[in-house]
Amino acid sequence: MATAPLTVIALNCSLKASDKPSSTDVLLGQVLSELAGHGVSAAGEVVRVAGLNIKPGVTSDEGEGDDWPALRRRILDADILLLGTPIWLGQPSSVCKRVLERMDAFLGETDDQGRMVSFGKVAAVCVVGNEDGAHHVCAELFQALNDVGFTLAATAGTYWVGEAMQSTDYRELKETPKPVATTNAMLARNAAHLAGLLKGARYPGAPG
Amino acid sequence: MATAPLTVIALNCSLKASDKPSSTDVLLGQVLSELAGHGVSAAGEVVRVAGLNIKPGVTSDEGEGDDWPALRRRILDADILLLGTPIWLGQPSSVCKRVLERMDAFLGETDDQGRMVSFGKVAAVCVVGNEDGAHHVCAELFQALNDVGFTLAATAGTYWVGEAMQSTDYRELKETPKPVATTNAMLARNAAHLAGLLKGARYPGAPG
Amino acid sequence: MATAPLTVIALNCSLKASDKPSSTDVLLGQVLSELAGHGVSAAGEVVRVAGLNIKPGVTSDEGEGDDWPALRRRILDADILLLGTPIWLGQPSSVCKRVLERMDAFLGETDDQGRMVSFGKVAAVCVVGNEDGAHHVCAELFQALNDVGFTLAATAGTYWVGEAMQSTDYRELKETPKPVATTNAMLARNAAHLAGLLKGARYPGAPG
Amino acid sequence: MATAPLTVIALNCSLKASDKPSSTDVLLGQVLSELAGHGVSAAGEVVRVAGLNIKPGVTSDEGEGDDWPALRRRILDADILLLGTPIWLGQPSSVCKRVLERMDAFLGETDDQGRMVSFGKVAAVCVVGNEDGAHHVCAELFQALNDVGFTLAATAGTYWVGEAMQSTDYRELKETPKPVATTNAMLARNAAHLAGLLKGARYPGAPG
Repeated sequence: MATAPLTVIALNCSLKASDKPSSTDVLLGQVLSELAGHGVSAAGEVVRVAGLNIKPGVTSDEGEGDDWPALRRRILDADILLLGTPIWLGQPSSVCKRVLERMDAFLGETDDQGRMVSFGKVAAVCVVGNEDGAHHVCAELFQALNDVGFTLAATAGTYWVGEAMQSTDYRELKETPKPVATTNAMLARNAAHLAGLLKGARYPGAPG
Repeated sequence: MATAPLTVIALNCSLKASDKPSSTDVLLGQVLSELAGHGVSAAGEVVRVAGLNIKPGVTSDEGEGDDWPALRRRILDADILLLGTPIWLGQPSSVCKRVLERMDAFLGETDDQGRMVSFGKVAAVCVVGNEDGAHHVCAELFQALNDVGFTLAATAGTYWVGEAMQSTDYRELKETPKPVATTNAMLARNAAHLAGLLKGARYPGAPG
Repeated sequence: MATAPLTVIALNCSLKASDKPSSTDVLLGQVLSELAGHGVSAAGEVVRVAGLNIKPGVTSDEGEGDDWPALRRRILDADILLLGTPIWLGQPSSVCKRVLERMDAFLGETDDQGRMVSFGKVAAVCVVGNEDGAHHVCAELFQALNDVGFTLAATAGTYWVGEAMQSTDYRELKETPKPVATTNAMLARNAAHLAGLLKGARYPGAPG
Repeated sequence: MATAPLTVIALNCSLKASDKPSSTDVLLGQVLSELAGHGVSAAGEVVRVAGLNIKPGVTSDEGEGDDWPALRRRILDADILLLGTPIWLGQPSSVCKRVLERMDAFLGETDDQGRMVSFGKVAAVCVVGNEDGAHHVCAELFQALNDVGFTLAATAGTYWVGEAMQSTDYRELKETPKPVATTNAMLARNAAHLAGLLKGARYPGAPG
């Protein structure tokens, strides 16, 4: 088993600039707090991705002004990636899609035994919306994250949405709904456990 | 413009046998009522598909005991297909998937100008769940229905789900939420209008 | 029936800047050519969206430097929207997602009878990738476009992808595969027909 | 680390009865062979689910004639679930959806520390089609399997589809395409590794 302390990087893929309150931030904060209770420390503040210049493209460096190379480095330095996104039209935000797109490059960034740079990292997902769409957002994120090398612990997603066609924001709720709190705790417990196991025992590579 | 009266067939893809109450039935009934207000008459009772033997396969007749050929005939005799499904795990029911799968055969059932048997029919979708999943179910149903030749009017889906991770059933609600009622009415108005237009002016076929 | 000539605006949601060759452009061009054969004229050049500054947000004008208001105007002035996107990780591009997100505002832009600004417009989709993902991209685009008020004619999507896990680009093909050419023609024929019908007979609004 | 031998159960969700050749079987067989090379033994023959009577419902026993309880037992007795499905209309088969639906019951089948009966099991996915749809099928299966408690190793899906709109079957190929063989091997290597880790160190439960 791993004994080194684990770290998590959290990305907030809200469409809003960093000075605006974000429901996604609230859910990310709750999960980060649960992770802290399992000895996982946050690798810096939650990253408000819309405040960075993540250029379109599918390489790891799209040139001048591209903020991806530095963010990519931070993602690969952490043991756990916590990816948070709002829901628009039942789907993940364009900012979240941009992040996934840039990780497409991991598919070609392998060691001499075929292991991507992301192998051994655990990913988890936080999804927030006024209404409907969380399961689908989880589906798209799980598939994309898994394709680019992340491992998904049991219950790798947590979410909140209101009743159909309503407009309440998660950050307006007076208290965290009990099933959401339970899911947040389970997600954190499982992600921390699995990240520890994988840190202590890397995926084997392809025979040379 | 078409003057012949329009007809609609409604399918309930609940997992439950026909003697059990179904929230999907409630929403289908509301939309059928709206359609009636636009002169669209129901082609018989709502079909509880789980009560039929729709055999697995992708041809229009899978042999002895297959209830699909008769249901297929009724679908093609109507002007509008109203497809209702519950949500399980954020996705359409297996019963609904079976219906779509059987319509895969339409892709090869074309006239001498390349028009599928379903061309000119309008489809609309009713989705009900305890929680989250409606947008994705609409996405899968829209794509599959469109692939097999149906036309989708503006706002071709209506739905209800409760707050995340909750367990209220639509049929337990004391009254229809206003935005759902508004959407039901809009869906019916648009579907009836478009079905009338297409009945009066068929899609042109490929030049011979 | 409408007698005014129909127009189409085509958006290319490639991740690449406008001076780079794009497979999405090739497929869009083929469909535009088919549409021209049905009397539908292009409303200007194909728009390379990555070359514009479409700001994140869900209003129709996100302020200084936002290129969306002008593009939005052009979309609403045309009768048909032809939306083209490449596939990355089996999903639509972040550039395409941004466009859909901005159209979320249409949900609130209704006349006094509840009709969105987009009602009566027909949308169609062109999807290109090295490999797998086209059906899902169509599903997401159909659902989002329909949610924001567009109508989908039978066979509203055309696509090309190569064999699984391969890397051929559509623009490298020596000739258009026959089933793709057939689908392109059918999509154009149906979209033109339906746009004409809807131009001649608007969706009715809600009674006042 | 676990020293007990690992086992895998493979489900083929083809629409075809068990005496018909299946491309899904070919891919499942290739992955099972890779797993065997890592000491994972098959828990019996590949299960042709269409040959069983898996009744509609979301409980673990839908009564007389239901073949699910026995299949459920076998799934929970194995360390790895290998779920294989064909693609129809770009989506998983109705037979596959039925299996996922029945596992919905796992959500309520927890021990006194909130762990589902499936916690600690690893799932992987094999997808085969004539054309397009594999990424989406992986997305839906990953999300549903993860929701009901399965863990997903890096690269938890392998697939084959032909070029867009073509009709070649995987079982007709003269040899396995190299990237598919590489993916099969990677999937098996990672799944075996992770299943071993989790067998040796269970997910911790919620404090009592």
